[in-house]
Amino acid sequence: MIKAGIIGSTGYAGAELVRLLLQHPEAEIVWYGSKSYVDQKYADVYRNMFELVDEKCMNDNMDELSERADVIFTATPQGLCASLINERILERSKVIDLSADFRLKRVGVYEEWYHRTHEAPEYLPEAVYGLCEINRESIAAARIIANPGCYTTTSILTLYPLVKEGLIDPDTIIIDAKSGTSGAGRGTKLPNLYCEVNESIKPYGVATHRHTPEIEEQLSYAAGMDYMSGDSIKVNFTPHLVPMNRGILATCYASLRDGADAGAVGEAYSKYYKEEYFIRLLGEGSFPETRWVEGSNFVDIGYTVDTRTGRVIAAGALDNLVKGAAGQAVQNMNISFGLPENTGLKLVPVFP
Amino acid sequence: MIKAGIIGSTGYAGAELVRLLLQHPEAEIVWYGSKSYVDQKYADVYRNMFELVDEKCMNDNMDELSERADVIFTATPQGLCASLINERILERSKVIDLSADFRLKRVGVYEEWYHRTHEAPEYLPEAVYGLCEINRESIAAARIIANPGCYTTTSILTLYPLVKEGLIDPDTIIIDAKSGTSGAGRGTKLPNLYCEVNESIKPYGVATHRHTPEIEEQLSYAAGMDYMSGDSIKVNFTPHLVPMNRGILATCYASLRDGADAGAVGEAYSKYYKEEYFIRLLGEGSFPETRWVEGSNFVDIGYTVDTRTGRVIAAGALDNLVKGAAGQAVQNMNISFGLPENTGLKLVPVFP
Amino acid sequence: MIKAGIIGSTGYAGAELVRLLLQHPEAEIVWYGSKSYVDQKYADVYRNMFELVDEKCMNDNMDELSERADVIFTATPQGLCASLINERILERSKVIDLSADFRLKRVGVYEEWYHRTHEAPEYLPEAVYGLCEINRESIAAARIIANPGCYTTTSILTLYPLVKEGLIDPDTIIIDAKSGTSGAGRGTKLPNLYCEVNESIKPYGVATHRHTPEIEEQLSYAAGMDYMSGDSIKVNFTPHLVPMNRGILATCYASLRDGADAGAVGEAYSKYYKEEYFIRLLGEGSFPETRWVEGSNFVDIGYTVDTRTGRVIAAGALDNLVKGAAGQAVQNMNISFGLPENTGLKLVPVFP
Amino acid sequence: MIKAGIIGSTGYAGAELVRLLLQHPEAEIVWYGSKSYVDQKYADVYRNMFELVDEKCMNDNMDELSERADVIFTATPQGLCASLINERILERSKVIDLSADFRLKRVGVYEEWYHRTHEAPEYLPEAVYGLCEINRESIAAARIIANPGCYTTTSILTLYPLVKEGLIDPDTIIIDAKSGTSGAGRGTKLPNLYCEVNESIKPYGVATHRHTPEIEEQLSYAAGMDYMSGDSIKVNFTPHLVPMNRGILATCYASLRDGADAGAVGEAYSKYYKEEYFIRLLGEGSFPETRWVEGSNFVDIGYTVDTRTGRVIAAGALDNLVKGAAGQAVQNMNISFGLPENTGLKLVPVFP
Repeated sequence: MIKAGIIGSTGYAGAELVRLLLQHPEAEIVWYGSKSYVDQKYADVYRNMFELVDEKCMNDNMDELSERADVIFTATPQGLCASLINERILERSKVIDLSADFRLKRVGVYEEWYHRTHEAPEYLPEAVYGLCEINRESIAAARIIANPGCYTTTSILTLYPLVKEGLIDPDTIIIDAKSGTSGAGRGTKLPNLYCEVNESIKPYGVATHRHTPEIEEQLSYAAGMDYMSGDSIKVNFTPHLVPMNRGILATCYASLRDGADAGAVGEAYSKYYKEEYFIRLLGEGSFPETRWVEGSNFVDIGYTVDTRTGRVIAAGALDNLVKGAAGQAVQNMNISFGLPENTGLKLVPVFP
Repeated sequence: MIKAGIIGSTGYAGAELVRLLLQHPEAEIVWYGSKSYVDQKYADVYRNMFELVDEKCMNDNMDELSERADVIFTATPQGLCASLINERILERSKVIDLSADFRLKRVGVYEEWYHRTHEAPEYLPEAVYGLCEINRESIAAARIIANPGCYTTTSILTLYPLVKEGLIDPDTIIIDAKSGTSGAGRGTKLPNLYCEVNESIKPYGVATHRHTPEIEEQLSYAAGMDYMSGDSIKVNFTPHLVPMNRGILATCYASLRDGADAGAVGEAYSKYYKEEYFIRLLGEGSFPETRWVEGSNFVDIGYTVDTRTGRVIAAGALDNLVKGAAGQAVQNMNISFGLPENTGLKLVPVFP
Repeated sequence: MIKAGIIGSTGYAGAELVRLLLQHPEAEIVWYGSKSYVDQKYADVYRNMFELVDEKCMNDNMDELSERADVIFTATPQGLCASLINERILERSKVIDLSADFRLKRVGVYEEWYHRTHEAPEYLPEAVYGLCEINRESIAAARIIANPGCYTTTSILTLYPLVKEGLIDPDTIIIDAKSGTSGAGRGTKLPNLYCEVNESIKPYGVATHRHTPEIEEQLSYAAGMDYMSGDSIKVNFTPHLVPMNRGILATCYASLRDGADAGAVGEAYSKYYKEEYFIRLLGEGSFPETRWVEGSNFVDIGYTVDTRTGRVIAAGALDNLVKGAAGQAVQNMNISFGLPENTGLKLVPVFP
Repeated sequence: MIKAGIIGSTGYAGAELVRLLLQHPEAEIVWYGSKSYVDQKYADVYRNMFELVDEKCMNDNMDELSERADVIFTATPQGLCASLINERILERSKVIDLSADFRLKRVGVYEEWYHRTHEAPEYLPEAVYGLCEINRESIAAARIIANPGCYTTTSILTLYPLVKEGLIDPDTIIIDAKSGTSGAGRGTKLPNLYCEVNESIKPYGVATHRHTPEIEEQLSYAAGMDYMSGDSIKVNFTPHLVPMNRGILATCYASLRDGADAGAVGEAYSKYYKEEYFIRLLGEGSFPETRWVEGSNFVDIGYTVDTRTGRVIAAGALDNLVKGAAGQAVQNMNISFGLPENTGLKLVPVFP
């Protein structure tokens, strides 16, 4: 059994980790970290866990935790993981960080978009971006896995084959994304109140959202650009808040390069994803809906080519708390520990 | 492996059966029955099943089905199961009927509340009311299991210990129940439209809802009344439609008998449910919320005693599609086939 | 033009007062009070008011406000109005208090249920309970109008004719109420977050909710009891939180007295409400739904008599922010200033 | 008083017309047309109208209606208005058609996108596209006003100043739009059911939605193109279904032309909309949310310029049933009859 510790287990992503790990046949949770609820019963914070979890919440002492755990998940705000990580911890435990601390290779980009100093830039080179379907092999060998963001997982997986195969002009990429409200976290802020979110849709972080550079970096690699030297694709990424609990949909637009057509697009998706358990290709003209993936680790992808405008419109949908956070983290754990990738993750989507 | 067939697999309860059985380690689905979608791919009707279910929908030929299946689930409108059932089928397969056809022992009561003639009254005596926690032993031996209604499971389980122990005056029982919209089924009727349900709550079937006699019959047994001779508790049961997908909450009121107090109420719940895996007793003053059981087979129960009025207010919550329908059906199957009762049903509630 | 000042204009009830008064032909708002947002533009707090309200938020200086306003609405937490009110203010302005400070005539009852000392008990005798349809005449003459609570308006109006006419046994009254989430206010508390409220229903404040004594007091008057001497009806009142923005539904149960039947119930409703503009009698067997009153000042009432149990089940529905708060406050203002009662309140319900 | 008749008064747009006209000081409804509900009381179909509307539903005899009405609103499926209209009707009544029959000047484009033959192409030349802020003067003189679609009103108003002033490259326009579910109408179709829409978001009609040519035509005029000869802007327009009742948000992307910057964009909006009562300019960096316009005839518009990509991102929000349908229809009526444009339309947005 893999011993797993969670720092930040009372946020929505942390709680989803708890749900998934409780149902994982090869893992057990040994540490329910939550600075805000130390010494309170976990099941009093999340009553769905009543009679399923007896433990109390622990602090975020990552050092002590590393003595007990084979893997540490940090489902915490930006900066925490980078401030705590050290060599001793990494000698004992794998670290899967759900924050952005180790997602961006260029520290300057991190500091520009996150408005904070990076406290452990020395670990950036070895950290592996944990987008399982793309980086599977490096993940297996990594000590630090930077679990991708929810918007980014959706966006990158939707666009990756098209960029990789050179079918689209990367300068024309526009990603219009929509997320359920659990993505905003469990913080008690006015904009998260029921009556403020319900019966409304809004864009936010337009042209400034922090998932932008993460998408740009990964797509730049796919395009074969020398990202570390400063070359980069630039995209427009616009997130929207949708009145629903879970789900992300990324509607992506790009101009096709000369000669690229619907057939080529379909082949590109097949080439990279046909064998992927968690990626379901809906085919041309069939588009994903978030309801069909809720509660599961699937990503559904569909597309169409508009010959009138010469653009491909492709869309991906996933559950932001599963494939967009905790599910992918568990998938990374599986890879890291040599388990079949879908161990504990064969969750059938819950509908309605 | 238990071979399971489902008639009515494209209704919401049928689809939930599919979800649960796909994740059941000892069962496999051999028949996706759906008269409306014969020969269409099941995954085209429920796209959450894309790449998970390859089969096409079949008709409702229960005879043929019984040759292939060890157990037949009928998740169909009232009357269908009674019209098809026969000795040959029962010799080959267990039948778990999710409709009301075999729930009420007195055929006259059925015909009065359901406004239809019962087509197989000869099977009423042997059919067992499949409320697992109460009738476990008879279920194990039954050929026909009448899977309880969603409202009734919630209401009966909430009130059973109080009636059984004689703590409340059964003539004072009032059940005010609230259900998510999946309980209304997948029929394309005006009142089920999004804009008609959303942002509203309404009572319906006031004093006439068909789950009333089902509750009355079972509680009459608990009270030791001679129900078959016409003695019966009479309750007021008022269902309400709530703008959410899943979940039932039953808020129950009754006057305590002399001498009964909060302590006695707590003891009664403990006596009957302490060892039950699927019933979670929240204790005095702590009330259930449907979000904490969503996606799982749990029933959460809480209560308080109002000494000002001499009443107990007890409430139960469950997921109407799981413990209120498909989950309980699988639990019945488990009992029927001698499996541990929670096989394939240790589902952690999904939140948010 | 009536000059109106609002203290607490940035809560949901206060904001609804702004919406209604902006559309009122005989009133203008002269003070947008909001301690939390002093000096901020009101339209920055409520962007629906962009280009409709230019004013900034003011403090809660009721003394200064009374120099400018003919009527002061206090849409503030319990205690504030009682702590500020004085003779000088009352000489200049009418006060319509949307908090509970002046709703309960017996100070001991207030202090018991609200767990606070009343700071202005000397004004309790003259304050008039502003349930317009019942107390119209005293309201016209009052200096202090205690605007009723949302649950209480619904519950009392639904039960009043039955109690007044002696058709029901008041000891058997049970009120099971359901409210939209705006009733919980705009406070940034965890239970008010979108993901905590959405897809769930829960009871709360069971047997302890503060609207209970308010209902009991008014129904005791209707029953002709000597409430001030300690006689009182006792009811069970259970509120539930529903995932919707607006709306309250109160489902009420009571045993009919001997001789009372559906006809008598219908006549009682007609007798008291037939001429009321804001009360719409749906008739026997027809039940209200909150969607049909949203955005309006209407109360819809329906009922049925269950001859099996000898009970009447009656239900009332209203918009908690309109007839349950701001709308009734404006109706009280109209009465107070001798205007036709529905001036500025002929709002057609918004659906869907 | 303007006598108004409505054909199709029981659809959501028709019902909103009823709501608005009931509150209009200069209009009265003389005909509640609804083929499906002939002879049924209108208030039985829409119970929010209980005691507000006494009339029964009428058929769609437009000839007879024109004898009674000064203005006829057709809120009906495509084709009905074109099939009924004739010279006699137009001599007696103005016609404001909420369907697409008279929105597209080129009959071939209509027939291509709507897959039907146009039955009255002879009236296309005189029909005026009723986008009030743009075509005010021609509307005043028109006999047939083609009321714009909901998506199109949002999209065109958001982009018009930028195209008109030549600030953007029209070949780069991408419109990603999101709509509440009332836009799907009151038809009893599976995809409109509560449980199918709730907790999900989906794109639909990708690259094929019928509002596309309507947007292209109007923006082509703005760009000074010879649309009738076949010149046309081509846009990508992708609608999405959002789990909410009302509201449309259109997020629009386009590349700025050389020299165009945020200042120029702001000036363009000011130039065309500063004096418009119903258009509220939020300014640079401030984006609209549908909740702030709900129930009103406002369009809120905001934008930002992303200098990294050289694109402007602009978004517009409105209530699809008001400014997107019935409200704009009434605004057209006001223009047509020489009333101040906002007569009966100074509706304060309802929040929450």
